[in-house]
Amino acid sequence: MNDEQRLHFKHDPEACKASVNAVRDTLYVLSGKWKLPLIVSLTNGPMRFKDIQRALGEITPKILSKELRELELNEFVKRTVFPTTPVTITYELTAYSQSLDKVIVELRNWGLEHRKHIRQSMRKRSEEE
Amino acid sequence: MNDEQRLHFKHDPEACKASVNAVRDTLYVLSGKWKLPLIVSLTNGPMRFKDIQRALGEITPKILSKELRELELNEFVKRTVFPTTPVTITYELTAYSQSLDKVIVELRNWGLEHRKHIRQSMRKRSEEE
Repeated sequence: MNDEQRLHFKHDPEACKASVNAVRDTLYVLSGKWKLPLIVSLTNGPMRFKDIQRALGEITPKILSKELRELELNEFVKRTVFPTTPVTITYELTAYSQSLDKVIVELRNWGLEHRKHIRQSMRKRSEEE
Repeated sequence: MNDEQRLHFKHDPEACKASVNAVRDTLYVLSGKWKLPLIVSLTNGPMRFKDIQRALGEITPKILSKELRELELNEFVKRTVFPTTPVTITYELTAYSQSLDKVIVELRNWGLEHRKHIRQSMRKRSEEE
């Protein structure tokens, strides 16, 4: 294991604090009700505002435009205006958004394993009782 | 890439929903103000309640015992009672908690890279202006 792959938590308060902050930054980017479903809906290609809204179900236009703006600021989403009449605006994932793939896969795999683990523990406990 | 490593988001609404839920489960386990700092403080070995409280700074005993109970339920933390007088109680990370290491490392590395990325973008923008 090299430095990039190790957890630097032991015996180094500074590195430890930086690690916790970095993890928090990532959690912040992915947390909340809509960020992840939004990224997921856009994986199939560029979409217009109304179509994203339809795909996500109960999101309000106000919240959707706030969430899209945040994803744009973090450079995950690119907004393009086409000079049609009336103008057409599409939203699409950037190449940079793919840097999240590995993180999302790890989060997903761990979540699936954890559910199995908890289910087994509960079964074991109910057999013991 | 095998199935475990791929993101199953395209063209399969069921798999897609399961993925989003699994990611949310993991985010839930790690989110909040204290879960991560708590796991981090316990990486150096078993600790008593008072020592954890001191290590975390401004956490109240009520919140700390709630957080520890949740980590116990998820089987990340083991609580041991020693029959001394008065009894000694320690909290320590379980072997299972290590399954989180890979996830935390990915979250940390991505967070560090993202901060660099955003800083570069801001510099580039201010140079263009």
